[in-house]
Amino acid sequence: MENLLSMTDAKEEVQNILDIASRLKSGEINDKPLTDKYLGMIFEKSSTRTRVSFEVGMQQLGGTPLYLSSNDLQIGRGEPISDTARVLSRFLDCIMIRAKRHDTVAELIEHADIPIINGLTDKEHPCQTFADLLTIKEYLGDFNKKFVFVGDGNNVCNSLLLGAAYTGMDMTVACPEGYEPNAEIYKLALEEAKETGSVITVEHDVHKAVENADILYTDVWVSMGDEEEAEERQRVFKDYQINAQLLSEANSNAIVMHCLPAIRGQEITDDVMTSPQSAIWDQAENRLHAQKAILYLLLKE
Amino acid sequence: MENLLSMTDAKEEVQNILDIASRLKSGEINDKPLTDKYLGMIFEKSSTRTRVSFEVGMQQLGGTPLYLSSNDLQIGRGEPISDTARVLSRFLDCIMIRAKRHDTVAELIEHADIPIINGLTDKEHPCQTFADLLTIKEYLGDFNKKFVFVGDGNNVCNSLLLGAAYTGMDMTVACPEGYEPNAEIYKLALEEAKETGSVITVEHDVHKAVENADILYTDVWVSMGDEEEAEERQRVFKDYQINAQLLSEANSNAIVMHCLPAIRGQEITDDVMTSPQSAIWDQAENRLHAQKAILYLLLKE
Amino acid sequence: MENLLSMTDAKEEVQNILDIASRLKSGEINDKPLTDKYLGMIFEKSSTRTRVSFEVGMQQLGGTPLYLSSNDLQIGRGEPISDTARVLSRFLDCIMIRAKRHDTVAELIEHADIPIINGLTDKEHPCQTFADLLTIKEYLGDFNKKFVFVGDGNNVCNSLLLGAAYTGMDMTVACPEGYEPNAEIYKLALEEAKETGSVITVEHDVHKAVENADILYTDVWVSMGDEEEAEERQRVFKDYQINAQLLSEANSNAIVMHCLPAIRGQEITDDVMTSPQSAIWDQAENRLHAQKAILYLLLKE
Repeated sequence: MENLLSMTDAKEEVQNILDIASRLKSGEINDKPLTDKYLGMIFEKSSTRTRVSFEVGMQQLGGTPLYLSSNDLQIGRGEPISDTARVLSRFLDCIMIRAKRHDTVAELIEHADIPIINGLTDKEHPCQTFADLLTIKEYLGDFNKKFVFVGDGNNVCNSLLLGAAYTGMDMTVACPEGYEPNAEIYKLALEEAKETGSVITVEHDVHKAVENADILYTDVWVSMGDEEEAEERQRVFKDYQINAQLLSEANSNAIVMHCLPAIRGQEITDDVMTSPQSAIWDQAENRLHAQKAILYLLLKE
Repeated sequence: MENLLSMTDAKEEVQNILDIASRLKSGEINDKPLTDKYLGMIFEKSSTRTRVSFEVGMQQLGGTPLYLSSNDLQIGRGEPISDTARVLSRFLDCIMIRAKRHDTVAELIEHADIPIINGLTDKEHPCQTFADLLTIKEYLGDFNKKFVFVGDGNNVCNSLLLGAAYTGMDMTVACPEGYEPNAEIYKLALEEAKETGSVITVEHDVHKAVENADILYTDVWVSMGDEEEAEERQRVFKDYQINAQLLSEANSNAIVMHCLPAIRGQEITDDVMTSPQSAIWDQAENRLHAQKAILYLLLKE
Repeated sequence: MENLLSMTDAKEEVQNILDIASRLKSGEINDKPLTDKYLGMIFEKSSTRTRVSFEVGMQQLGGTPLYLSSNDLQIGRGEPISDTARVLSRFLDCIMIRAKRHDTVAELIEHADIPIINGLTDKEHPCQTFADLLTIKEYLGDFNKKFVFVGDGNNVCNSLLLGAAYTGMDMTVACPEGYEPNAEIYKLALEEAKETGSVITVEHDVHKAVENADILYTDVWVSMGDEEEAEERQRVFKDYQINAQLLSEANSNAIVMHCLPAIRGQEITDDVMTSPQSAIWDQAENRLHAQKAILYLLLKE
């Protein structure tokens, strides 16, 4: 794995990343292999979890993170991303970027000589998927499960589709018509699923979708960038809420996941977030461990 | 002490914190006890002293600070503070927050599993008080002195009232009518003063107030958040200026303190700021040592 | 050298700085002499190269950088720079500042007790000049060369004039009338040139200027702060573009330099930037090594 733009880049490394993440979390791996390595963290969108987890994770591995808001960079002044890529490659050992457009990260990869990590784009969120897979493995033991994504077929959902396909996990996307995941990724996930035996579907009836579910997962209805559609989305998604009723329709020991930030009363209710079935806070912590594994794999000689 | 929201949290630790601060400053304590500890520093208001002193102090103790402007955090996007508290508790070992509202810090404490330090709120500024007490101890030897706070009974004044009460120092607040310190804190300080024997008063006549004073202290007339009252405050506070005349009415060896930033020609004159009686620059430096002592106490196992 | 405001501060240290930079770059010097040293980096203007290169460089030397945007500092609230200087001197060991006005840095130096480094002002950019001289030394071996600056006689050009004068390099500024370098600096460079034997001239005919040139150097036509003149400047500078034709008029092994960011199609063409004669990316990297040498010289006991 040379970069992590898409889950497709990590196809051959999924189990390895999860294994390294577990060993980092348990303390079995506790050296500081990234001493004298420098990670640039570029944010075109604000962030809590991504920023703090990458910054702490890099330090715990012995490396040095640099927080670079795009306001602080010349990128904001219109320097072509290719020049920024060339120059930063001379100073840094790796870049994590949270970008508005997936193409920005792709272009950075094209021109940089150092590994680039997608820290969230409009198309994918692979770091989140690794944290999610790690959480499922911890809670449920293996991926021979039914995972249901409830809500908007967004970037988080796209990466999860590939994560499910690669791990052999069944996944149903329960979404309103018109809010399906990226067609190209969905098609690719179906192909990959053939090899691993996972069953991947889209289902507009949320009640039908959650039958026999082992994991219910959701994300905000209005992602950053969708703000003008906010009102319409409230209406369209109103039946796609993970609440006590919906949770009761899944398997009795189903866990609930959310990549955060959550808007209580919209995509999820407060009682579900704080119920014993919620894996949400461990899931958030696992951003740290999953991302450390990714950094470890990309940067350790 | 589990958190430092208010001076009340530190009541039993005042002498201990001052002692640790002195030993850190002298180099008697010079280990790096906070290695592998992570301090999140959240700023809802801009800062020079608080930011640089905490960042350097944490590093000097071997720990790692993360500067988190609230612009960069999801807090800015309306995530409930309780969720931010839960998530940051998974990544960090301590949070210092400079918040517009005291309640924000209280809520953070309620939901976080890690120590929280008040780096300034609308109600209190305990870190400043410890720097101030350390400065008084260094300049005057003990707290058997008369301390006069001249100006607005603001957050800085509130914490100083409790600091005076706990250390047995006499304290007079010389302020215009209507600008007295927080009533609840004042009442509490009077109660605490009974135990330590300090005399705490409010006096509207600034000239009467500074008689026999050993320390004159002031702060800006217009704090952040009071900008719309700026013009009225200039008028109301105009006699509450620490100038050469007022200083001459205090004890001849009185020292002058200011928590900075200062607006020369308003609450203090340039000649007083730079006079031999000014302890202002040592007081500023003591933010570093006092805060290191607080971090040391909260985070060292 | 106590501070680096202007190239004049470094007059006696030019060869020493270049020598240290080379030894740092080669790894011959590889200790961490700045352990427990703190560098404040204040930015009034956005930056990629300056920020990342100083932050990484300080860390590589064992020291600790603090990135301070002027938005985050009280400077933004109108605290006099003299007070900021006094206070920061208590917490930090050095300050690098990128300021809109040269006078801001001069005032900081006047009141601070620690070394101050000019990281770019409206008048000079000495850190860039050291990176440039290092690049020339690496590519061409010595300074017995003809250096032609094509374009606006701006801050970058000003510092280069002194750098050329101190190293004995011939330098011609090819600029439109009215866009000559700072008159005071130009005069000083002419005087210094007498001692070292370098020939320093201004030439409005760009074709005449580049005859026998060993180095062609340019910078953007519209610097930060000149935005309102953008349209006029496009017109005035249109013949001062480094393109294949102009490059062919210089010596056949001439190198091309640009301090970046570049606007392709204005001051330089894409084909020239990426041609084998371009030293631009090594020049960018040399910001790191040159600045480490400056920090080393100023801060190592």
